Amino acid sequence: SDSKLPNVGTTIFTRMSRLAEEHQAINLAQGFPEFDCTPELKRMVENSMSSGKNQYAPMAGIMPLREAISEKVLKSYYRQYHPETEITITSGATEALYTAITASVRPGDEVIVFEPAYDSYVPAIELNGGIPVFITLDPQYQSVDWNEVRSKITSKTKAIIINTPHNPTGNVWMQADMQQLALLAEKHDLTVISDEVYEHIIFDGRIHISTASIPALAERTFLCGSFGKTFHITGWKTGYCMAPAAMTAEFRKIHQYLVFSVATPFQYAIAEYLQKPEHYTALSAFYQNKRDLFNEAIAGTGFIFRPSQGSFFQNVSYQNLSDDKDVAVAERLTAEAGVASIPVSSFYSKDVDYKVLRFCFAKNDDTLLRAAEQLYRFVWN
Amino acid sequence: SDSKLPNVGTTIFTRMSRLAEEHQAINLAQGFPEFDCTPELKRMVENSMSSGKNQYAPMAGIMPLREAISEKVLKSYYRQYHPETEITITSGATEALYTAITASVRPGDEVIVFEPAYDSYVPAIELNGGIPVFITLDPQYQSVDWNEVRSKITSKTKAIIINTPHNPTGNVWMQADMQQLALLAEKHDLTVISDEVYEHIIFDGRIHISTASIPALAERTFLCGSFGKTFHITGWKTGYCMAPAAMTAEFRKIHQYLVFSVATPFQYAIAEYLQKPEHYTALSAFYQNKRDLFNEAIAGTGFIFRPSQGSFFQNVSYQNLSDDKDVAVAERLTAEAGVASIPVSSFYSKDVDYKVLRFCFAKNDDTLLRAAEQLYRFVWN
Ligand SMILES: CSCCC(=O)C(=O)O
Ligand SMILES: CSCCC(=O)C(=O)O
Repeated sequence: SDSKLPNVGTTIFTRMSRLAEEHQAINLAQGFPEFDCTPELKRMVENSMSSGKNQYAPMAGIMPLREAISEKVLKSYYRQYHPETEITITSGATEALYTAITASVRPGDEVIVFEPAYDSYVPAIELNGGIPVFITLDPQYQSVDWNEVRSKITSKTKAIIINTPHNPTGNVWMQADMQQLALLAEKHDLTVISDEVYEHIIFDGRIHISTASIPALAERTFLCGSFGKTFHITGWKTGYCMAPAAMTAEFRKIHQYLVFSVATPFQYAIAEYLQKPEHYTALSAFYQNKRDLFNEAIAGTGFIFRPSQGSFFQNVSYQNLSDDKDVAVAERLTAEAGVASIPVSSFYSKDVDYKVLRFCFAKNDDTLLRAAEQLYRFVWN
Repeated sequence: SDSKLPNVGTTIFTRMSRLAEEHQAINLAQGFPEFDCTPELKRMVENSMSSGKNQYAPMAGIMPLREAISEKVLKSYYRQYHPETEITITSGATEALYTAITASVRPGDEVIVFEPAYDSYVPAIELNGGIPVFITLDPQYQSVDWNEVRSKITSKTKAIIINTPHNPTGNVWMQADMQQLALLAEKHDLTVISDEVYEHIIFDGRIHISTASIPALAERTFLCGSFGKTFHITGWKTGYCMAPAAMTAEFRKIHQYLVFSVATPFQYAIAEYLQKPEHYTALSAFYQNKRDLFNEAIAGTGFIFRPSQGSFFQNVSYQNLSDDKDVAVAERLTAEAGVASIPVSSFYSKDVDYKVLRFCFAKNDDTLLRAAEQLYRFVWN
């Protein structure tokens, strides 16, 4: 029998990581930090394990972690999510997104997706029988055309997926975008699925405008977050989803049969670690330095770019250097310059040719400098 | 809008655990060990974390763990699953089951389910638009009526879900059952989804007959396993799914968007821990002692039971003690005898009245003796 996801192959992240290994290239492709989490956080996990926190956590997550998230969100974004009924701990933001989509989308429902889009949204919609409706943006876009969004809404539109700070572009939504979204979502009774995993990585004095800070949005949003990006623990698979109680009740019905619960020792450790805001408030400055270091170092390569506004990704255009498609260029740079990146076309549903690559700068400074040096020495022909 | 799972409320496991807490009852309801994993296994996790294994694992799992599983399965069940293409590490067996069902079931497909059934199978089928077709067994059944199974197969039957050793009954399938299943599955081209999480907990000299040991079955089976039950780490959420390469390719397409990958430090630790078979070969004897201890201690209570054949559950009938339904009896025993159990009716899709309770004996000996003592002192009226 044929595939339920006929268009899906191995993810571009896996493919580029393999190619990087093959050519011993510096891997600026898949988005994960080269550096480790703090010894303090590891010790907290050790303490959880040695005090016997090794059996099933409650299905929705341990209460101290849900309380810690509630307090943190209340302080930053003003909305109070109730730990008992409105916060669920998930196996990373990926599970949060899949579960939120499963809770929202029925066969035939349309879901608005801005592309370039993180690669899990569309398969999750399709596996639930939904129909993705795309708003296609140039990766260098400056702002969303809300008239276009409006024009795509039909009586079948059920939900809209947003992501800020944005993967892959690094773009950040402003208050005005959120307000437009709120108007539209209210008018058409849309569910919003908001991917905010890069909330603590935002640059040049910008502040993260969360759906949690817009009352009209918060009441209809599954807000998906993650600790992986914030604490350098992408491999611990710990995230969460916040939503009003009725939406959370639906979310949990699915979550309890998808994974049931999330690794207990990590939950206790993160609950404790969250008590100190300095564990995440310095992250933007940390990554802004890396962005600036990398951007200054590649300034002479001929790439054209605007500095990333958030996330740990920098997009660059090679339009004045080569006519080749981005997949070919990414492969060539991996093999010949020894630097792996992600071709941004892989974040689109259709064949596009923007000539843009995504570099991940969540790497040690010397790695970034070496990568820039290798790109600098590479000769286009 | 209404629910996608209108019949689903809070799981019975969560409800009985809450009730147990409320009455400070001994919790023999939810299935998890009262005892901890070994210090050795925890040290292996610490070593993984301190050597920086804290970022994304490969989507299918780390290779050393897949290799360790492959070798273990080859030794015990003769089939060689290739680590590269046939084994995927999952967020517990729950995710393995959900993903296998999602990979197999399309809207309108029928799926044969033996009930009593673990509570996640049916919602997973329904969320994928499938139709569960039930073979309803008395929890005290001695063997499957294969003529009945045959009579339920239609042109729409896509898959069949089996579970041995069985939760909640503790029953174990024999070679003859597997052979019957193989004949039927081949004849009607069915996908088999096999839940074998209790493979290492089996009593009285029985051996686990795995789908992996029946060549005709292995070629069409998603075999779902777990380390949670085997190493006393239900809270680490680590399991796996094995299936022939083409089925695994479909499985991974879903897995990569459901959770992407599984906690890295646990994977390295378990890969190492699996090197010593004594870490799991003694488990059956360990639990058989507990079963016997508990059963001897409740022998005078008036409960009627056959000793469990496998898993860490003992079912008992109270048919000669009370006419009440099992939910009422389980609640009363929790409140008045101070011992929580699971009413077995909660593992059925329809309203049944077998008067059977499930007790989990994965508890310290003194806990089991105290529970038996309290049940003994309880007065029916
Ligand atoms: C889950 S693997 C992909 C990691 C990531 O977020 C990215 O590279 O975009
Ligand atoms: C995932 S919670 C339920 C645990 C269990 O397997 C059971 O009690 O049957």
